[in-house]
Amino acid sequence: MNAVTFLGTGEMGSALAAATLSAGYRTTVWNRTPGRCEPLRAGGADVAATVVDAVGAADVVVVCLLDHASVHDTLDPVAPVLAGRHVVNLTTTTPDGARELARWAAGAGIVYLDGGIMATPEMIGTAAATVFYSGARETFDAHRHLIELWGTAEYFGPDAGIASLYDLALLAAMYMMFAGFFHGAAMVAGAGVGATEFAERAVPWLQALAPSVAGYATVIDGGDYSRPGQQSLLFSDLTDIVDASRAQGISSELIDAVQGLIRRQIDAGHGDHGFARVIESIRKSEEAAA
Amino acid sequence: MNAVTFLGTGEMGSALAAATLSAGYRTTVWNRTPGRCEPLRAGGADVAATVVDAVGAADVVVVCLLDHASVHDTLDPVAPVLAGRHVVNLTTTTPDGARELARWAAGAGIVYLDGGIMATPEMIGTAAATVFYSGARETFDAHRHLIELWGTAEYFGPDAGIASLYDLALLAAMYMMFAGFFHGAAMVAGAGVGATEFAERAVPWLQALAPSVAGYATVIDGGDYSRPGQQSLLFSDLTDIVDASRAQGISSELIDAVQGLIRRQIDAGHGDHGFARVIESIRKSEEAAA
Ligand SMILES: NC(=O)c1ccc[n+]([C@@H]2O[C@H](COP(=O)([O-])OP(=O)(O)OC[C@H]3O[C@@H](n4cnc5c(N)ncnc54)[C@H](OP(=O)(O)O)[C@@H]3O)[C@@H](O)[C@H]2O)c1
Ligand SMILES: NC(=O)c1ccc[n+]([C@@H]2O[C@H](COP(=O)([O-])OP(=O)(O)OC[C@H]3O[C@@H](n4cnc5c(N)ncnc54)[C@H](OP(=O)(O)O)[C@@H]3O)[C@@H](O)[C@H]2O)c1
Repeated sequence: MNAVTFLGTGEMGSALAAATLSAGYRTTVWNRTPGRCEPLRAGGADVAATVVDAVGAADVVVVCLLDHASVHDTLDPVAPVLAGRHVVNLTTTTPDGARELARWAAGAGIVYLDGGIMATPEMIGTAAATVFYSGARETFDAHRHLIELWGTAEYFGPDAGIASLYDLALLAAMYMMFAGFFHGAAMVAGAGVGATEFAERAVPWLQALAPSVAGYATVIDGGDYSRPGQQSLLFSDLTDIVDASRAQGISSELIDAVQGLIRRQIDAGHGDHGFARVIESIRKSEEAAA
Repeated sequence: MNAVTFLGTGEMGSALAAATLSAGYRTTVWNRTPGRCEPLRAGGADVAATVVDAVGAADVVVVCLLDHASVHDTLDPVAPVLAGRHVVNLTTTTPDGARELARWAAGAGIVYLDGGIMATPEMIGTAAATVFYSGARETFDAHRHLIELWGTAEYFGPDAGIASLYDLALLAAMYMMFAGFFHGAAMVAGAGVGATEFAERAVPWLQALAPSVAGYATVIDGGDYSRPGQQSLLFSDLTDIVDASRAQGISSELIDAVQGLIRRQIDAGHGDHGFARVIESIRKSEEAAA
């Protein structure tokens, strides 16, 4: 029978372990606060008293802790026991954090696969979940049966940092969309429109407009911001939105930030170029551009 | 036969007039640069040589010019001729700009309906187009047959500024989503990932996540940011995204702006409250909060 160990049974670690248990794997779990393992024990998991015991119980060790520091806190003392085993680290870290862990693992003879979970705990084990992986291809291939229990598994290459980079890039886009919704809701609130009423319009509106980013992407990859048929940067000036926000007495800082990126391209003489050129303001940080 | 006049046959005015002509209305058009009326003349429109001639040709005058100033430039001299007629102004203005025009119109005995077009010119006349209206209800009701030629028509109330406010609020959300896409694309570009490849993942990701704003809206309207089951503000800290962006050498200013809103709530002692509380940072401008 396939054996798997989980270090960390918080919200996400518990969801991963539960999906694994349901599939009939021999599942060992450890958590700093032992009480959080009880529901999994009731489901048939072996609860290890120590990290050493947990790690010794399986060839593949899934790590889902809070952050980069907690991974080192937990793994450093058991590095000798981990040597020769596979670590699948699903803790969110930065790309550089993942790369540092991969180097540390290599130095200790540990096979390291990094993962970024694009899902909430409730989505684990359903078609709605995707997990991005990068690092050790051999781990991805040998344990694919396991990792596909959690969601669609995608492998991005041997650089352990790429899964995290992709993960954070999509999260950045998500948080910006959410922040934009909050900004719009704050604007209409002044006219007595509830956030729920605004959401009823904003959701189909955002869903309908999301595909237009593909058109911007074509322009970006093509490298020609002057090709015809694009909405120009001058046309995309956000002064009306800024003014209307301020007139409502709300903060315009989010829109100011986008407007700042647009203005930098206009001020550099590219006002007649397409809106997609905004990415050039992001690619070059303000300090670098100055 | 129903008669309609259009002032302004730029991209959008031409699309509106063309849809109206196709429906068999007697359509009179005027544009500052007369050459832009030629395609409509070929389609059967009467081209007026002066604004006075144009306005005199119909009881309902649709205005689609560049901005607030161009509307005054064009309408002020013909106010006496407009008296008693209906003006449907589809020029984008701020809410206060629309209110000012409504007051000006009332003073001149003109019935004023303001509109905000949620569509591009190609979408006019298709199910994909929606136009928001506010101001004179009598115009909306009497000329509904006309305005429904352009797209779904929605009326928001007698305050002429609300259609514009709603329009700008949705545009704010759209520009934030687009900016977030550009930020994510700039992040992964450093790892050699093209914007098109990123868009293939970002589009379904954003479409899948857009409906979650309805959950935030429920919390906002309920007014209880502490109710259980929410992602906390502390959990929503964006430090990893900021750090990863800077490590890629790109500007973090968009994410910094969102992070600033999150931090203000955490610093005020609400870190364990739900993410939706970010709207409170927007509702109260930084100056007002300080
Ligand atoms: N929840 C989500 O929606 C979601 C989505 C995608 C990715 N993730 C990622 O998944 C990871 C876990 O998230 P979660 O939702 O499961 O969080 P959580 O419920 O707060 O669990 C955190 C876990 O980390 C452990 N931990 C924290 N500091 C530790 C330390 N110094 N040494 C040992 N253990 C430590 C906690 O142990 P105790 O129980 O003893 O505190 C707990 O097991 C995070 O990196 C998160 O970013 C979560
Ligand atoms: N295009 C879109 O996707 C879209 C979407 C939603 C809303 N809108 C709104 O629709 C309005 C028109 O946009 P558009 O795309 O049609 O722009 P456009 O093609 O640039 O047309 C601008 C029109 O305004 C006229 N104009 C400008 N300044 C004037 C002045 N001082 N006096 C008289 N006429 C003046 C222009 O006349 P000339 O031909 O003589 O320059 C032209 O007819 C704008 O308020 C825009 O925000 C557009």
